[in-house]
Amino acid sequence: MITIALDAMGGDFGCEVVVPAAFEALSRCDDIQIILVGERQAIEVELARAGSPSASNRLSVHHASEVVGMDESPALALRGKKDSSMRVSINLVKAGRAHACVSAGNTGALMATARFVLKMIPGLDRPAIVYALPTMNFSDPQSILNERVYMLDLGANVDCTADHLHEFAVMGSVLVSAVRGIKQPRIALLNNGSEEIKGNEQVKAAAQILSNNNMLNYIGYVEGDGIYKAQADVIVCDGFVGNVALKVTEGVAKLISILIKDSFSSSMFRKLCAVTAMPALNDLKHQLDMSRYNGASFLGLKGTVVKSHGSASISAFATAIEEARLEAIENVPDRIQQQVQTLLEKQEG
Amino acid sequence: MITIALDAMGGDFGCEVVVPAAFEALSRCDDIQIILVGERQAIEVELARAGSPSASNRLSVHHASEVVGMDESPALALRGKKDSSMRVSINLVKAGRAHACVSAGNTGALMATARFVLKMIPGLDRPAIVYALPTMNFSDPQSILNERVYMLDLGANVDCTADHLHEFAVMGSVLVSAVRGIKQPRIALLNNGSEEIKGNEQVKAAAQILSNNNMLNYIGYVEGDGIYKAQADVIVCDGFVGNVALKVTEGVAKLISILIKDSFSSSMFRKLCAVTAMPALNDLKHQLDMSRYNGASFLGLKGTVVKSHGSASISAFATAIEEARLEAIENVPDRIQQQVQTLLEKQEG
Repeated sequence: MITIALDAMGGDFGCEVVVPAAFEALSRCDDIQIILVGERQAIEVELARAGSPSASNRLSVHHASEVVGMDESPALALRGKKDSSMRVSINLVKAGRAHACVSAGNTGALMATARFVLKMIPGLDRPAIVYALPTMNFSDPQSILNERVYMLDLGANVDCTADHLHEFAVMGSVLVSAVRGIKQPRIALLNNGSEEIKGNEQVKAAAQILSNNNMLNYIGYVEGDGIYKAQADVIVCDGFVGNVALKVTEGVAKLISILIKDSFSSSMFRKLCAVTAMPALNDLKHQLDMSRYNGASFLGLKGTVVKSHGSASISAFATAIEEARLEAIENVPDRIQQQVQTLLEKQEG
Repeated sequence: MITIALDAMGGDFGCEVVVPAAFEALSRCDDIQIILVGERQAIEVELARAGSPSASNRLSVHHASEVVGMDESPALALRGKKDSSMRVSINLVKAGRAHACVSAGNTGALMATARFVLKMIPGLDRPAIVYALPTMNFSDPQSILNERVYMLDLGANVDCTADHLHEFAVMGSVLVSAVRGIKQPRIALLNNGSEEIKGNEQVKAAAQILSNNNMLNYIGYVEGDGIYKAQADVIVCDGFVGNVALKVTEGVAKLISILIKDSFSSSMFRKLCAVTAMPALNDLKHQLDMSRYNGASFLGLKGTVVKSHGSASISAFATAIEEARLEAIENVPDRIQQQVQTLLEKQEG
């Protein structure tokens, strides 16, 4: 049994989403049990609303009296709210009472608290945020339903050295080989061109380091459009660039989805066309449904912490719980620790 | 009359595209004349194929014996090919025989040659690449047909200081006020968050400088998704991030277009649906048609140079010619020079 602690109060909707998501995850996975962490009364209202699904014997509530606000300063949350649902969820991981935790709360506060409570794996400098994006083999559009590219860092580290990028590559490689079962994940550096002379100083220096690490299957540079062409399993970049790439993706997808909706509703005839086009449009909606890709992981910590999107739906939050389950089963933090240890010994030896 | 020199041999298709594009531009704009620069014989074959459209009295051919290859090193092109169609086109601008030039050739070679021949405006360090992207007011999807956001730098400068970002902001502001008639263009810095504490070192320092320059209408940070929400008229970033943002956009748009095509062709019934959905799908295609957005400008030079996409269609290349016309009419390099001069005097004063 894998135990997962959920910050029931985090995110834009708190326990209104987290409680039903817990039930959904329990029904999706029969090898997990869940601890709902937060204000007992608020949680019990939602539990009562959900009726008493059969899985509820794998569910418990752990009271926490405080809530970290979505706009609260990470430093204040860390110092001032020692009994927050977020902090207590992480404490449960630290104490070994949960194998992983999931929160849809304030990213900065979650990062700062997780780092303070769980500590970094020795040899690593800062946590990185990694996220599995949809990608596609263009000759087989249906491949979008299974293909994934893990990209890191997505915003935790804005000023990165080549050594940081190397750390991200090592952690990403370990994660993907653990959770996707790919023995030698293809690692690429995100760059502004594919030729050797391209790149900023850090990326060019990182390319040298990655080429020399024979524990990595480093395949070279990919450009921004390569993210969506299934060219690599892991794409490494600094947190500034990663954040921009992720947000641009969201922006373009949103713009196109609004245009599709608009062009199928601009007249009565168009609306009728939309009815016949519905199966095709629904396929598209399913393929691009971001709730199937929810759950970013903080790598480099001595414990598994998964961040859900703040406005995640019930189904999306359940997907983040599944991600936490997988990383807990595969013991990703231990695997990273071993890999880093081996690297450090090599460097010393 | 505005005279525009075209590098007839550049790009993936050379004069097969450039010659008919010249005719298209001549028929779109009756205040331009065009000089086709390149191998006379090859150009004349295409001219003959095009028949003799009535606009041809505004068209002339200027022979150039060499061609810069798409993968040729910029340094070699610069030193070794003094009679290339690219170089000669730029020479015509330098000599005052053309008001602007357009090339679909090798970006690096074009940049190096333009910089060598035309020289930088005093006070500016390096040219920047700027490009007008489609953007949209989400409450009015049809606004995509008119709204534009100018983004720079898109790849010429990968390692940028805060001062470089400031230069880009000044040049972008001048360009947009000239060619779009917006008196005080809204200038934003691309960032990994909208809060003041966000950003890498350069962006945070640039925010200070931009806030203190009261000649700019600096509105603060935008995130990657803000590019497509019509939040600013000019978005400033380093060339690494700009290139990634542009390529990610292309990648996502391509992925979605393949998925749309696939979902409307997976069965006979779906194909029939696509027929009725055609007007809506065609609208979408038109709205997202990148040929309506072709033509990146090199800013900071003492002359107007526009870069067309290497694989631009005839219509797209004609759009790049229109961009060059507009910048020549508005005399963008002179306007930038004046603005930079004023800034320099202020700093000294």
